[in-house]
Amino acid sequence: MSVAFDVRVDPPYPVRIGPGVAADVAAYVPGDAAILEDANVATPHGDAVAAALEAAGRRVVRLPIEPGEVSKSVATWESLLRRLAQVPFDRSVTIVAVGGGVTGDLAGFVAATYLRGVAWVNVPTSLLAMADAAIGGKTGLDLPEGKNLVGAFWQPRAVLMDVGALATLPDAAFREGLVEVAKHGLLADAALLEAVLDGTFGPDADAAAWTRWVAASVRVKADVVAADARETGGARATLNLGHTVGHALEAASGHALTHGEAVAWGLLYAAHLTHLHLHPETDGRDAARRLVRRVAPSPPPDVAWSDLQAYLRRDKKNRGGRIRWVMAPRPGAARVVEDVPAAVQEAAWEAFVEDVATLRDVRAVDRPERDGGA
Amino acid sequence: MSVAFDVRVDPPYPVRIGPGVAADVAAYVPGDAAILEDANVATPHGDAVAAALEAAGRRVVRLPIEPGEVSKSVATWESLLRRLAQVPFDRSVTIVAVGGGVTGDLAGFVAATYLRGVAWVNVPTSLLAMADAAIGGKTGLDLPEGKNLVGAFWQPRAVLMDVGALATLPDAAFREGLVEVAKHGLLADAALLEAVLDGTFGPDADAAAWTRWVAASVRVKADVVAADARETGGARATLNLGHTVGHALEAASGHALTHGEAVAWGLLYAAHLTHLHLHPETDGRDAARRLVRRVAPSPPPDVAWSDLQAYLRRDKKNRGGRIRWVMAPRPGAARVVEDVPAAVQEAAWEAFVEDVATLRDVRAVDRPERDGGA
Repeated sequence: MSVAFDVRVDPPYPVRIGPGVAADVAAYVPGDAAILEDANVATPHGDAVAAALEAAGRRVVRLPIEPGEVSKSVATWESLLRRLAQVPFDRSVTIVAVGGGVTGDLAGFVAATYLRGVAWVNVPTSLLAMADAAIGGKTGLDLPEGKNLVGAFWQPRAVLMDVGALATLPDAAFREGLVEVAKHGLLADAALLEAVLDGTFGPDADAAAWTRWVAASVRVKADVVAADARETGGARATLNLGHTVGHALEAASGHALTHGEAVAWGLLYAAHLTHLHLHPETDGRDAARRLVRRVAPSPPPDVAWSDLQAYLRRDKKNRGGRIRWVMAPRPGAARVVEDVPAAVQEAAWEAFVEDVATLRDVRAVDRPERDGGA
Repeated sequence: MSVAFDVRVDPPYPVRIGPGVAADVAAYVPGDAAILEDANVATPHGDAVAAALEAAGRRVVRLPIEPGEVSKSVATWESLLRRLAQVPFDRSVTIVAVGGGVTGDLAGFVAATYLRGVAWVNVPTSLLAMADAAIGGKTGLDLPEGKNLVGAFWQPRAVLMDVGALATLPDAAFREGLVEVAKHGLLADAALLEAVLDGTFGPDADAAAWTRWVAASVRVKADVVAADARETGGARATLNLGHTVGHALEAASGHALTHGEAVAWGLLYAAHLTHLHLHPETDGRDAARRLVRRVAPSPPPDVAWSDLQAYLRRDKKNRGGRIRWVMAPRPGAARVVEDVPAAVQEAAWEAFVEDVATLRDVRAVDRPERDGGA
């Protein structure tokens, strides 16, 4: 069983989701291939992709990438470009990314810039990459001055999400991805949100469930991206739900919180803010509480609202110094709100902090065996 | 007097040509500006652009670039991006390039990649940049493995060709530009070609003549680019007229020939090849001879056709190992021809070598005072 549909950007490209879809990679690689692969997943995922391409008669060069954010550097990008030039590959080469979000961002930017742009196919192997980075054409690198400050919008020719790769994903990594999936549920798909919250979609599900729910998550993001491919309108900014405070908490914790945990807490803050500012009659706080219980074993850092301001002001999505808050009062109604009074922002923080204390007590009592050691 | 028209890519952008048009730069820079300027032309051209922007109330940061091809490097690009991030500029910044082709290629690639792409305005100050690099959206860097191996198509918001800058251009640099102008004449504008060949368009002309003929040259390139913005069809490849053998001669001379001289000789070879292969009844050889007399003081290197093959095979425009020859039997009839028999290519080379010997004798007799010391 697999699912396929197009991301309707210009030109549209197919996403295929299901167990074993990576074996069809050669259908999207008409000529030579350079596989840029996370060295951690080269076995077995890179091997499988290389074998499929070689069986179809393609010339294949494999370029391993050191795992982790450190590889999203100018130095790694330059060395990959030089390797491609030394082969040398001409403009008919297809770059094939096999790995998580770092690999996709880096390989996509290599594809965007080699010989002024060549085709690429993305084979994401983590749930986070499938749910988030693999759709939307954002590619890029970090600078010492900050993450993702260099890059390009460069859509892939195809994205193959082989959910078989999720079977080998550590639980903590799976939870990282679930946060973005839950965000897509909050934005536009109540059934998807419930599947995350009640565990229907989780590390213990089977390939059919993974296929169904990964596809549901991808559809939400693909629709938003199709409406605003280059992030020039407001639609794409809604994908930032939970990330405004999430990024601030991640930074304030000195990155002791994972990105996923930080965003989960950010989603809880967003629920409080939305409840206070926009829709007191619509209450997303309980869903957000259930989410942090499921995916965020570590509590947020104990910081004052005033201390968080410096981090909030750095957000790349701000315009003219104003924070652009994303609120999702219910699935399908997400929007950006710029005029939130400072007093409301702070009141939401106080309610959030109280909530965190309660959740911590609950966790200590009834969930130690589940999240304790993960 | 100035001329303005749109380059009809998506989205279209205006080109303005005339004395003093750079003074209007603020009309194309709605917010902050980063001026990336060739350190050699910072005075007076960079100063004038900065003054115009500051007079309009724009915040301006000036980033000088070391002159020459050496600056089209990953290291220079990275340092410029870091400077922008340190300011920091957000996505509303406009990059303003002031300089020749190197500055435009580099600044355009900075714009293409900073924060996944920001706007840029190109203010070319050399005839070569006006006639060639400033139109078409090609941006990029060199690698140790070769020139322009890294880059992106990234169209500017506007191009301001201040022909006043041509008054300070050294004669040799003017001639470099004239070769590309003549190529545009050969491709599509007989009057433009004649203006170059008879000296109507040259370093001694006035601003009105410069405006008229630069505009004529830009129109030819803009039409080709509009038909094939990303170089995916064949149209844009016609701009390679004369460059196939030109690049090979430039490399074979150990870069003792300038690029312009090499292309001028390449245009003479192309005229011989076209005469032999395509249109014996149409003879562009005399125009090409007049061009090399006017713009190419140095003779081509004394190499055998067999020795030139290695260089020819490296051409980025080749597909599947076949050389894609551009032939322009008459203005308006340029096309790419792939099936030229090896014997015809070699016969054209022999005719070219004979022609070079004759031209050298003529030059020694009747033109020593003109080209001798330039």
